[in-house]
Amino acid sequence: MEITITKTKVLKPKPDDSKLGFGSIFTDHMLNVDYEPEKGWHNPRIEPYAPFEMDPATMVLHYGQAVFEGLKAYRTASGSVQLFRAKDNFTRLNQSSRSLCIPEIDEAFLMDSLKQLLEIEKDWIPKAPGTSLYVRPTIIATDPYLGVRASNTYRYFVILSPVGAYYAAGFNPVKIWVTKSHVRAVRGGVGEAKTPANYAASLYAGEQATKSGYAQVLWLDGVEQKYIEEVGSMNIFFVIDDEITTPMLNGSILPGITRNSVLALAKHWGMKVSERKITIDEVMQAHESGKLQEIFGSGTAAVISPVGEMKYGDKVITVSDGKVGPIANKLFKTIQDIQYGKAEDPMSWIETV
Amino acid sequence: MEITITKTKVLKPKPDDSKLGFGSIFTDHMLNVDYEPEKGWHNPRIEPYAPFEMDPATMVLHYGQAVFEGLKAYRTASGSVQLFRAKDNFTRLNQSSRSLCIPEIDEAFLMDSLKQLLEIEKDWIPKAPGTSLYVRPTIIATDPYLGVRASNTYRYFVILSPVGAYYAAGFNPVKIWVTKSHVRAVRGGVGEAKTPANYAASLYAGEQATKSGYAQVLWLDGVEQKYIEEVGSMNIFFVIDDEITTPMLNGSILPGITRNSVLALAKHWGMKVSERKITIDEVMQAHESGKLQEIFGSGTAAVISPVGEMKYGDKVITVSDGKVGPIANKLFKTIQDIQYGKAEDPMSWIETV
Ligand SMILES: Cc1ncc(COP(=O)(O)O)c(C=O)c1O
Ligand SMILES: Cc1ncc(COP(=O)(O)O)c(C=O)c1O
Repeated sequence: MEITITKTKVLKPKPDDSKLGFGSIFTDHMLNVDYEPEKGWHNPRIEPYAPFEMDPATMVLHYGQAVFEGLKAYRTASGSVQLFRAKDNFTRLNQSSRSLCIPEIDEAFLMDSLKQLLEIEKDWIPKAPGTSLYVRPTIIATDPYLGVRASNTYRYFVILSPVGAYYAAGFNPVKIWVTKSHVRAVRGGVGEAKTPANYAASLYAGEQATKSGYAQVLWLDGVEQKYIEEVGSMNIFFVIDDEITTPMLNGSILPGITRNSVLALAKHWGMKVSERKITIDEVMQAHESGKLQEIFGSGTAAVISPVGEMKYGDKVITVSDGKVGPIANKLFKTIQDIQYGKAEDPMSWIETV
Repeated sequence: MEITITKTKVLKPKPDDSKLGFGSIFTDHMLNVDYEPEKGWHNPRIEPYAPFEMDPATMVLHYGQAVFEGLKAYRTASGSVQLFRAKDNFTRLNQSSRSLCIPEIDEAFLMDSLKQLLEIEKDWIPKAPGTSLYVRPTIIATDPYLGVRASNTYRYFVILSPVGAYYAAGFNPVKIWVTKSHVRAVRGGVGEAKTPANYAASLYAGEQATKSGYAQVLWLDGVEQKYIEEVGSMNIFFVIDDEITTPMLNGSILPGITRNSVLALAKHWGMKVSERKITIDEVMQAHESGKLQEIFGSGTAAVISPVGEMKYGDKVITVSDGKVGPIANKLFKTIQDIQYGKAEDPMSWIETV
């Protein structure tokens, strides 16, 4: 598919690298592609960032049929631009689409069109350490129709947002809260898809956590409420007795790309690694017996997020003395160095733009 | 709040009453109300039905923070217009909002503003038997922001759609399919809220059912996958051994207003009624022993939907000889007659516009 390019007449002023937050500033252009049953995905175009004209009956607003991705473009010291495992994001987008009855898109096209968009927007990629350009590919159902069924028409779009360093205030641990009352997803549902439903279901407990001074919610499984699943927008790892362990992919947690990178690197380093079922009781007991060395989350936004404190029911435990553990630290540094082109890329994760 | 009214200059042509489907034709005007933290809900206005200008980063598109309702306005033989239990829809809207961290709206305002909108659009309420004007109140999160949290701003809107008789081809039973593999919602989640997430989670199994010739999916509970929950967009009733029974409200099914009406009428008629846990095995056994007399769904769209066939695993059972059972028939006729002002309203369910 040939992409039509329409450039904006007036460029927006670019923000100061030191004043970037997350997800509220958008670049000059976006990519739009439409789907109709007879035409398939068609009319790809890069055009000025602009609001959609959206009928109030548009299905995505009523029935949440949508999927999305989140990845980043990084500027290296030499000024070049690179993506981290973008192919995997596009594969996951199509996986999510299958769960939501959305037609798939050719992955080579997804990659090529993103590169074209980034080429046009490359001046938006910030330079300060830890900053990047966040990429949000999204598909929404666009039929203006109120019956409950999969839509016939869709819009694929990509928007870009320059984001600040996640650890602008230093690479510090966070506090997480294990919810006993709320459930994000259950097997047989859409928990492993990156789809709005899972985030909608997480808002209430998220607000409760924030009000109590906790950064994120740790979710337990929906069936027995005892197996650990994942955190807000991260997967979760435990270092117990020198073993790095994370919940196995069970159909209700997001198969995180950072999660996969952590597993690959730890194995590559010869560490003991496992993906398995882990109960919250096992973690609490490991803490009591002094075997719980570290807890950390993994995700595109933070890369690695060390956990210094965890609350479960009445119990509050301090992890790694409330400091960043050595494994979290090594993983963070290594992955970030690969992302910014400062270190070798032993797994061929980098895609040059 | 004073509602500003702006009328359209050109009225759309009204469709033929005999050619109405469901949810694809919209009237000339809509209601819009905005929310901002400092102003609360403000600027209510009835204005021409028009597309939203929606930033591609609008939170509802990414995180599904939204709630909605579905109710109908009916035209009586004398030409007057009436709503059925609209108060309960607005109470449920606020209940849904609480689960989704959305600010509540004054229920008297919700009712009054709907009546004003209906007053303006009353010529859109069709006259043919079984037709009505479907009302869709909706709230969507409107911050243009990609972080996961509750939005600060919202839009409440109401759109209206003239809909045809659900049973245009006759009051006939449907076939339903019990899914063993998919789960709609689980306790601790958002299953009892009327929010897009639940419908997104239902699409995949819904498509599978349709492909196999079944009209709707019957959902089992998310924990043990053995207790009956509800059907696609209906609650479900069983008549076993002269008792009318329906799954109790457990936090993961929608508290249907038609469900409540069925329970109230059946009790009023002196029938044996229960709300309790019902396993799919109990239903299959009741069928085997000849005690299963009827199955029917309840919901705003169909009022009552008799079930003539149900498939569970390899077993296909025929219910009420594949015909409409007497209790389903009596409930359908009674509720519909109340809705259209043809029968007395013993429970004061009718709201006159
Ligand atoms: C629910 C959830 N889990 C895990 C992750 C981590 O996935 P990834 O490492 O691909 O960013 C994310 C988000 O990015 C998420 O939203
Ligand atoms: C999931 C679900 N269950 C049940 C119902 C029935 O509710 P009510 O009788 O209020 O229409 C509906 C829809 O209307 C629904 O969407």
